[in-house]
Amino acid sequence: MNKSKVKSTSKINTRMMEALEKALFLSVSENTAACYHLQSGGSRTRAKLCLDASNALMLNEKMALSLSCCVELLHNASLVHDDLQDNDAERRGRASVWSRFGKDIALCAGDLMLSKAYGALSDIDEINKLPALLRCVSDSVSKTIEGQCKDIHQQCKSLSDFELIAAEKSGPLLQLSLALPLIAANYESEVERASEAIRQFAIAYQIADDMNDWRADLANGQLNIVNLLARESDHSQAIELAKTRAQYLLKRCELELKELPANCGASAIEACQQLFKAVCRSQNE
Amino acid sequence: MNKSKVKSTSKINTRMMEALEKALFLSVSENTAACYHLQSGGSRTRAKLCLDASNALMLNEKMALSLSCCVELLHNASLVHDDLQDNDAERRGRASVWSRFGKDIALCAGDLMLSKAYGALSDIDEINKLPALLRCVSDSVSKTIEGQCKDIHQQCKSLSDFELIAAEKSGPLLQLSLALPLIAANYESEVERASEAIRQFAIAYQIADDMNDWRADLANGQLNIVNLLARESDHSQAIELAKTRAQYLLKRCELELKELPANCGASAIEACQQLFKAVCRSQNE
Repeated sequence: MNKSKVKSTSKINTRMMEALEKALFLSVSENTAACYHLQSGGSRTRAKLCLDASNALMLNEKMALSLSCCVELLHNASLVHDDLQDNDAERRGRASVWSRFGKDIALCAGDLMLSKAYGALSDIDEINKLPALLRCVSDSVSKTIEGQCKDIHQQCKSLSDFELIAAEKSGPLLQLSLALPLIAANYESEVERASEAIRQFAIAYQIADDMNDWRADLANGQLNIVNLLARESDHSQAIELAKTRAQYLLKRCELELKELPANCGASAIEACQQLFKAVCRSQNE
Repeated sequence: MNKSKVKSTSKINTRMMEALEKALFLSVSENTAACYHLQSGGSRTRAKLCLDASNALMLNEKMALSLSCCVELLHNASLVHDDLQDNDAERRGRASVWSRFGKDIALCAGDLMLSKAYGALSDIDEINKLPALLRCVSDSVSKTIEGQCKDIHQQCKSLSDFELIAAEKSGPLLQLSLALPLIAANYESEVERASEAIRQFAIAYQIADDMNDWRADLANGQLNIVNLLARESDHSQAIELAKTRAQYLLKRCELELKELPANCGASAIEACQQLFKAVCRSQNE
């Protein structure tokens, strides 16, 4: 299975993506390590989902860029700190920030991006949306950190523990890509539906990841759903079970996303369908 | 010299301080490590300066508490991450967060407090002040991180390098205690004066600290202004020079603070005067 094929086919024009890149780099321009990290690319999936949803919901460009910058900076802050915690020396095919600049500088670079994510919200015109946007970002970061702490302690003994950790660790930041545009477009009542859908996606994504990495994770003693399920059966059965679960979650996710206003979950639906196909393909490898 | 004597004689009533403590703990209640850190106390100097300034400027209680919570959470986030970077196993007479809970959890606890500092601003009633408040916090955190990165690289060869690092590292977060209430009270034009004053204070505070610790810092190879100045003279002359510089900075600081509206720098002036006395006393020890 090649997860790199799972990309949203964005309808955003080049100009918007260039504006986003410019805003991202401008916000951390004084920090060499943060710039180095952003230069390494990444798919900008979260920013694209957020820009697409913002466009669908007819938000103005300034708002769309601020929200997208916010979600992308949060995601990258979490990657820099994750690499530090996991001692991962590589990210996107080159040295991770801590491995290139040292652990102290990596800590600072992550802090800066986390802080600048909030700073990005100070630019928006519609000030009356700010409190709800701030609250949503703050709640999501808190949930992510709670998930991260649980992951550190690895209090994971069952499929439901695993799903809770996966959902808490990567769900909340991913949810922001839809939640923030919905809030800004006065659809606060739809945030829960969008977040529940993305929660399913986040779990399915982690399962797909684990189906890919179970051998390496087994060797390194890392938490992996396939190895967890294999304790009570064998690996081929465990993979089959994991696959079925991922497919179920992705179908549920797609159904929820289709209910969102102005078809603002269109890019997320595409990402869902592509991950579904990738999970199906993995059978034959 | 006993720096612990340098405290602001706050005029804040017990009820406000209790409300602040409650708000601080409530904001991180789900995170054991962050609660542990806050329980260790600390002088809450920044929160008190902020509450005093807010009262002087007639801000409502909700605003005063949100701003004070914000500055205190930022300060404590920086302490938790500083201890991690400096490998300091003790803080306020007991195990530092990383030493008690491990480095990964300490990283998360600092991230949480940094994020919650922004979250605290979502509570304020006067929404039109939010963009400027957000911008001010974001700028201050960025400057602090820049100072911290310079400190890590120790690019410090002269008194002016030292003062720049000291000012950048501890100045910006301390400045917020006055800057945020001034912004909230529509005195944005006074923020620069207040920040310049607190910048002098931050440098003087670092010099006083170094006068206290030069022997230990010499043994550990830590940056210390006394040892830096002693390279071109001897230690007794270096201490005298450092003292004169601190006294000059504190006098300048006091003069600037006296110009602030509604006497909102009163607590900061007291802190200034007490540090001045402590620096003078150090001559006879």
